[in-house]
Order: sequence, then structure tokens, then C-alpha cells
Amino acid sequence: MKAGKKKAKPESRRGATRAPVGLFFTLGEVARAVGGSPIGDPGLRLTGVEALERAAAGDLSWVADSRQARRARESGAGALLVASEENAAGKPAVVVANPTLALAVWLAVVSSPTPPRPGVSKRANVHQTARLARGVSIAAGATVEAGARIGARTVLRPGAYVGRGAEIGEDCVLHVNAAVLERCRVGARCTLYPGAVVGSDGFGYVWDGSAHRKIPQRGIVRVEEDVAIGANTTIDRATLGETVIGRGTKIDNLVQVGHNVIVGENSLLCGQAGISGSARLGTRVTLAGQAGIGDHASIEDGAVVTGQGGVVSRGVVAAGSVVSGMPAAPHREFLKRSAWLARLPELARRLEELEKLLARASKGG
Amino acid sequence: MKAGKKKAKPESRRGATRAPVGLFFTLGEVARAVGGSPIGDPGLRLTGVEALERAAAGDLSWVADSRQARRARESGAGALLVASEENAAGKPAVVVANPTLALAVWLAVVSSPTPPRPGVSKRANVHQTARLARGVSIAAGATVEAGARIGARTVLRPGAYVGRGAEIGEDCVLHVNAAVLERCRVGARCTLYPGAVVGSDGFGYVWDGSAHRKIPQRGIVRVEEDVAIGANTTIDRATLGETVIGRGTKIDNLVQVGHNVIVGENSLLCGQAGISGSARLGTRVTLAGQAGIGDHASIEDGAVVTGQGGVVSRGVVAAGSVVSGMPAAPHREFLKRSAWLARLPELARRLEELEKLLARASKGG
Amino acid sequence: MKAGKKKAKPESRRGATRAPVGLFFTLGEVARAVGGSPIGDPGLRLTGVEALERAAAGDLSWVADSRQARRARESGAGALLVASEENAAGKPAVVVANPTLALAVWLAVVSSPTPPRPGVSKRANVHQTARLARGVSIAAGATVEAGARIGARTVLRPGAYVGRGAEIGEDCVLHVNAAVLERCRVGARCTLYPGAVVGSDGFGYVWDGSAHRKIPQRGIVRVEEDVAIGANTTIDRATLGETVIGRGTKIDNLVQVGHNVIVGENSLLCGQAGISGSARLGTRVTLAGQAGIGDHASIEDGAVVTGQGGVVSRGVVAAGSVVSGMPAAPHREFLKRSAWLARLPELARRLEELEKLLARASKGG
Repeated sequence: MKAGKKKAKPESRRGATRAPVGLFFTLGEVARAVGGSPIGDPGLRLTGVEALERAAAGDLSWVADSRQARRARESGAGALLVASEENAAGKPAVVVANPTLALAVWLAVVSSPTPPRPGVSKRANVHQTARLARGVSIAAGATVEAGARIGARTVLRPGAYVGRGAEIGEDCVLHVNAAVLERCRVGARCTLYPGAVVGSDGFGYVWDGSAHRKIPQRGIVRVEEDVAIGANTTIDRATLGETVIGRGTKIDNLVQVGHNVIVGENSLLCGQAGISGSARLGTRVTLAGQAGIGDHASIEDGAVVTGQGGVVSRGVVAAGSVVSGMPAAPHREFLKRSAWLARLPELARRLEELEKLLARASKGG
Repeated sequence: MKAGKKKAKPESRRGATRAPVGLFFTLGEVARAVGGSPIGDPGLRLTGVEALERAAAGDLSWVADSRQARRARESGAGALLVASEENAAGKPAVVVANPTLALAVWLAVVSSPTPPRPGVSKRANVHQTARLARGVSIAAGATVEAGARIGARTVLRPGAYVGRGAEIGEDCVLHVNAAVLERCRVGARCTLYPGAVVGSDGFGYVWDGSAHRKIPQRGIVRVEEDVAIGANTTIDRATLGETVIGRGTKIDNLVQVGHNVIVGENSLLCGQAGISGSARLGTRVTLAGQAGIGDHASIEDGAVVTGQGGVVSRGVVAAGSVVSGMPAAPHREFLKRSAWLARLPELARRLEELEKLLARASKGG
Repeated sequence: MKAGKKKAKPESRRGATRAPVGLFFTLGEVARAVGGSPIGDPGLRLTGVEALERAAAGDLSWVADSRQARRARESGAGALLVASEENAAGKPAVVVANPTLALAVWLAVVSSPTPPRPGVSKRANVHQTARLARGVSIAAGATVEAGARIGARTVLRPGAYVGRGAEIGEDCVLHVNAAVLERCRVGARCTLYPGAVVGSDGFGYVWDGSAHRKIPQRGIVRVEEDVAIGANTTIDRATLGETVIGRGTKIDNLVQVGHNVIVGENSLLCGQAGISGSARLGTRVTLAGQAGIGDHASIEDGAVVTGQGGVVSRGVVAAGSVVSGMPAAPHREFLKRSAWLARLPELARRLEELEKLLARASKGG
């Protein structure tokens, strides 16, 4: 960063990520930050980061994989993050093992948003028995109920809510209207996006002969460290005991996690996926968009349920497997069946022809 | 409850439901409360309620059905709620017709959360023309608009919203950021979980040749008594007239109910189910997770649509039937088809063999 | 409007749309407003608008198409909007090309809700550097962050949120708890329904060998003019660049739009539809309820994905086509396959019979 002593934190304008006027960074700085090798002049000055289609001469861009090589050639980008010199298409570049990872690293350097100033707004509603560690930032309209604890440097945006006796770790962000209900626990470095709800009651009722009687939901949700919970996603508290979201797991928007579910570490739950009560997910499981998991099902380590896939109640998806369809089947099977399903009208016609042929043959015979 | 005059309301700690130190309850007290017969010493002291896997010597647990008998034997629980003496595995127990119902009853006795103190926060926004019955509790940041009515003992948590002219019955709870929009009506003893939205506009547009013209949505939502509406669930107001949620119906999280839908009494709508406009559901209907109902469809009394099942527009699901798949078919049919679908590649191969055989035969002949 | 000088804006009561006592409108006024021809006495006085089933002698109703002719005959409505004289069933009526459009026009005349009074509540949280155009209405508990701009006559309801540097156009409504996050832009005449979230982070992570590393999401969402965004719907900001919702597009509740998605003009996204990252939708595309679009897929102009339909990653749906099922196929194909799928057990049995027959024949031979 060459322009004066101010650290260059380029503000994005209209969706671009650009350095303020007069600020720039060099190809060499990028190479050092991401641990890569520069191709071309390390002193090359760049002012922004952009996708291939939108990048101009002052922009750094990235080539995720070789399939993008053509788009890289056609791009107006001034320099590229690439996995191999061939992908650079003759442009100045930084060669790294994983260009997408390098992009993540560099964007964090160049564009981390300024955290809000520490302090508790006079218009926040913080109960006198709540315990706030140093450096917390609690906005107007946020609420912290009796006995709750908020870890150091954690940020509550307007309308965020921490219920009675709940605990939030250090360096968390609860975005607008995100809620952690009573007694639930959230580990360090978690992000709850707007409208996320942690600890609403599980859907537990029992028919008593004339009405659905509520089974009080007295457990909690325990969210481990480094978890992200997407906008308007809902995670229900356990009937008794805990619903658990394992360390490092990332959850997208509008996902439903039922009561008593256990999600392992470093799993990915994509948008609108749903997990019924008491299901278990291992580590590094992936649920693609709109996938549905039945109650008491088990999705073992590293398994993937593809988009709209459905695993039935008490179903088991073996470690490392990829399943698709409803009811879910191994993905290759699913593709084969889908292909044959498309040919089913033809198969039926062929069957009918054989029947006619044999009928004629038997008459003829 | 033996410990002094304080009524034992054990606070849950870390997801367990335990009596405060020094408090306990006895097997005999449990038996009386749930209307069951004790096996073993009625004076046996217990201090908590826990699931079988987590229960220790001081805990009461429950055996939902005989399939759990092995887990009951292996459990460390001090006593059990069971349907028959065999399920007690030799432990002290209370025999009742429905152990899950007994659990619901006992948890309500032992762990009902303290309601917030009545009163209106100075930081609540209550219009001067709103009418509040006695005993209401309205938190900081909650809003009650002009002409709205709030029934006795009803609780509005932070960020809860009651629109102009809306009516909320007695003993309701509107959790954090739950909203009931203008003129909608909610009956007694309803619970709206965080972020639930009752009375947003129905999705009604008509193409006018150059744009989607909005059809003003001037009806309401009428929610009858004893209804639960899950976190971030949305129920749209009717174009004209009413969208209706019948008495005793329980709705899970992230469910969508379109405009002019009528849901009968005591139905269950599980997580992420969706109901398109003008569909009708009878009494005691169950929609499992992610089920979808097309517009103007009719799901008759007692019918079940299983997970991810889809009923087409104007489709009819007969009373008492169970349907699955998309388009939905009777569940047994669905299972049969799914099984044959899995064998479809094999069927195709067999068909081809027959064709070859006959081709050879006809050449040979 | 005959009753005095007050313009008749009938308040709806209990889900009906009725004129206040003493006010009425005439059949002739309706005909003029909607550009139709009256059948019967243009002076006929009416006091409300209702659906066919609920309409009484004082009510105007409408007959959307000929399929409703029987219900029109049986209706108690005093007058009807119809497409042809036959559909009027002998009642007074107004004949128009599109009765549903006429209904939309007339409801807007007769029942447009009173907008809130302009002004900024003392209990709103508006940063001193925010710029508010004239006529804005900002409710208690709403927040406008630093550098944000709010266009003329735009309304922020309680709990609504506009982030740092965001821009909202003229004549918009942000309903309760709707949020537009930092730097996002919303065009004129847009409505965000309760709990809608525009500009939450895209779901972008890259595995770094031991954890899912976040790819900072530094782009924005740009919402063009005349867009509606349903309750609790979520639209993610782009990694870099823009997620775009085209002019005139209407989005229902609980819809998920991933990062870098481009939605064209005048499209319709129905409840619980989901669009994965970098997908592109053309103009006048329809996604029916619970439809799912894979990442980088392309849905061309005028295409329709029916309810629960699933388009795979990088899939293409041709302009004007209608697709169904998962993986999505042309709708007619889908229907044919579904019909044959229902007969699959029968086909399998017939195949087996042929095999037996040939086995016997070959033995016999």
C-alpha cells in the first residue's frame, strides 16, 4: 500500500471493490499476501478486484479452474490469480495452488469492513444482570435479557436479541433482527445473519385424544465456534438436552434444523435445506439446496445430498457417498434411472411390440 | 415437592431440566400428576428429566414405545415413564397409556417457564387508541398500532408487532419480531414464534399487457384458538375475505401459507411445507416437511402428504389417505414405483434381451 | 361517489371490503373506472367487493373465466365483473376484456390504504449523515445508517433497516423488520414485505485444508424499480459485482436468491423457490412454488419451471418452455413419464410374462 500512511481499505462503490482515489496495491503485494509467485512486473499497480466479465485494466481477477481459461483470455483484467501459467493467458498473474482461496485471502486483506465502534447504545435494552465483556458493540434496538453473557468484541446490530441466560462467545456478529433465545449457547467467531433464529421451540406435540398437546421444549441449542447461520434460518432447541451445530459448520439462508439434531464439524448446509428432528449429520457433510433429511436419519461423514434430494426417516447415507432424488439413491444410480425414466415411454412401446409379435407368432403357430 | 414452600420450578442448566440444588420430586408425585401406576418405591427421589441416552441416576426418562426397550435397558435413568411393565427393564417406573403424553404433562408441571411480568415498557410503542386488556406484557421495542386490541395476559416480546385494527386474543405469546399485520385476528392461547409473519399481502398480480399489476390484497388472516405458528413462517392475507388457520392447528418453522387458504382444525404443517393460494385442508391433515400443495387443491380430513410430496393445482387427496412423491400418489403405490424405478435399468436390459432373442428366432425361423 | 364530498375509501371490516356506513358506489362508476360496458342499471348502488362465495346483494364480485360460470349463477352478488355477457348469469354486470385486471383496478380505487403520515419518529434511529428526501415516513424502531439515502415519500415501518451507504428510491415501502444492508440499492416503487432481507452475504467458502475459509462478499444487490420482495425472502449480495433483480419482477415469500444471480424484468418467483449462485433468469420467467435452480443455470425468457421442479447446475431451460420434475424435463414429457411410471409395476409384470412365455417356447421347441 503506497499511498501515505493510511491503510488502504478500499470502499466498494456500486458493487465493485476498489481502492479509494489515489490508493493502489501492487502485484508483488498480492503475491506475498497469498503466498504465490508473480508472473510479470511485481511493481504493477492495481486498484480493484473484480470478476472476469467485469474486470478492467486496473483490476485483479481470478481464474478458478481451467474451464475458465477462455473467459480469462477475453477478460479486460489487468492481472489474474491462477493455478498455472497457462491459465494466465499471457497477462500478469500470481500463480498459487488454489486461486479461489487466494482470492478469499486477498479480499480479506483489501476490503475487511470497519467494525462498529465498541459501546452500548442508550437505546439498546440490556438487562442489569447481563454480563458484557470488553469491546462489545450493542446497537440501538438490540436486546440482552437477564443473566445473558456477551463475549469480548461481539457485535449486536439493531434488533438483535439475546435471551435470558444465553451465552454468546467472543468476536461474534448478530446481524439485524437475529435472535438467540433463552439459555442457548453460541461459540466464538460465529456470525448470525439477519433474521436467523436460534433456539425457537422444537415441533413436539402429542395427540391427547382431543388436541395436540405441546411437549415442552426444555433443551437448548449449542452452536460451536466458527459457525455461520444464514439469513432467516431457524434452528430449534432440543426437547431435552441439546441441538448441536458443530464447529466450523456453515449454514446458508432459510435452512430449517429441527430439535435434537446433531450436525458435525465443518459441514455445509445450503439454502432451504431442511433437517427433521433427531437426525444426525457427521463431519464435512454437504446438503445442497432444498435437500430434506427425515427424522432420526443419519448422514455419515463426508456424504453429500444433492439439490432437492430427500432422505427418508431413519435413513442412512454412508460416509463419503453422494445421493440424489427422493427417496435418495446413489447419484450414479439416480442418473441412470433418470435417463431410463426419460426413455420409459419408448420402453413401453417396445414391450407392446414384442407382445404383439408373440401374439401373432402364437396365432400363426 | 418437598423442599420448603417454594414451588419447585427447576431451571434448566445447559440443556438439562433439573431441579435447583436441594429440590427434588418423587416417583409417586409423577404417577399422580400423569395418572399412572408406580412400579417400585413411590418415595424415590428424582431431580431431573432427561432423554434415555443422557439420563443419570437422579433422572426420570421415558420409553416412547417398545422399539426403545433396548435403549431403556442400557440407560442410566433412575426411573422411567413406560406403556407396560416389560418396557421398564426392571427399573422403577410409572406405567401409563401414553408415555410421551405423560412426559408432556410432567414437563409442563416441572418446568413451565416464568411468564414475564405484566406491564408495558416505556420503550414499547403503543398507540393511544390501542386497547390492552389487563395483565398484558409488552416489551421494549414492541409495537401496537392504532385501534389494535390485545387480550388479557398476552405477551409481546421485543420487536413484536400488532398492526392497525388487529386483534390478539387472551394468553397469546408473540415472540421476538413476530408480526400480525393490520386487521388480522388471532384467537386465544396462540403462540407466534420469532419472525412469524401473519397477514402479509397475498401474491396476487395480473398481467396488464406491459406489467404485473398488483391485485390489492384487502382480506385478512383469521387464526383461531390454540394455534402455534413457527419461526419465520409466513401466512398471507386473503385477496378478499379470509385466510383461515383452524383451531388447534400447529405450524412449524418456515412454512408458507398462501392467500385465501383454509386450514381446518388440529392439522400439523411441518417445516418448510408450502400451501399455494386458495387450497383447502381439512381437519387433522398432516403435511410433512417440504411438502407442497398446489393452488385450489383440496386435502381432505386426516390425509397425510409425506416429506417433499407435491399435490398439483386443483388436486384432491382423499380423506384418510397417505400420499407421496411428485405428483403425489398413494404411498404404497409410490413405494412400489420407487422400487421398480430402481430396477428400471435391469428391466430395460431384459427387454433388450427378449428383442434380440426374438430377432434371432425370426432370422433363424 | 355520492355521499358528500369525502372520497369514498371504504375501510375493510373483518376481511370484507365495504364502504363506510352511508357510502356507496354505482355500477356506472365501476364501468368508467375499469373501461367496461355496463349491463343493467348504471345507477345500481353497491357497497362492497367480495369473492363469489361470500358476496351479498350489495357486493360487486368478479368471474375470472368461464369455468366459474356456475359459481357466478349461485352467487348472491349484486353485480359482476365479467368477460362476456353469458358469464353474468343474468345479473347486473360490467363487461371487460380481463375481469381480474378490472378487479385490480377497482380495488385500488376503492380501498387503497391510507399511507402513514410523513415524518421521522423520535424513536427512529437515523444517522446524521443519512439523506432523507421529502415526504419520507420513518417509524419508531426503524434504522437508517450512515450515508444511506431514502427517496421521496418512502415509508419505513417499525424495525425496518437501511444499512450504511444503501440507497432506497422514491415511493418504496419497507415493512416491519425488512432490511436492506450496506451499499445495496433499491429502485423506485419497490415493496419489501416483513422480514425480507436484501444484501446478506452470499454463501461463499473455500476449503483451505482445515476449515471453510470465508470468501468476503463485497458486492451488492441492485433491485430495479417496481419490484416486490415477499415476507422473509432473502436475496444475497454478490461476491463482487451485483446480484440483480430486474424491473417489475415480483417475488413471493420465503424465496432464496443466491449471490451473483441475475433475474430479468417482470419475472415471477413463487413461494419457497430457490435460486443458487450465479444463475441467470431472463424476462418474464416464472418459477412456481418450491422450484429450485442450480448454480450457473440459465432460465431463458418466458420459461416456466413448475412447482418443485429442479434445474441442475449449469442447466439451460429454453425460452418459452415449461419444465417439470427433478431433473427438470419438458412438462409434456414429465406428464408422460409420470403416467408410465405409475404403470411401471404393470410393465414389469408384462415383461416377466413374455420371458416365461419365451422360456416355455424354447423348452417346448
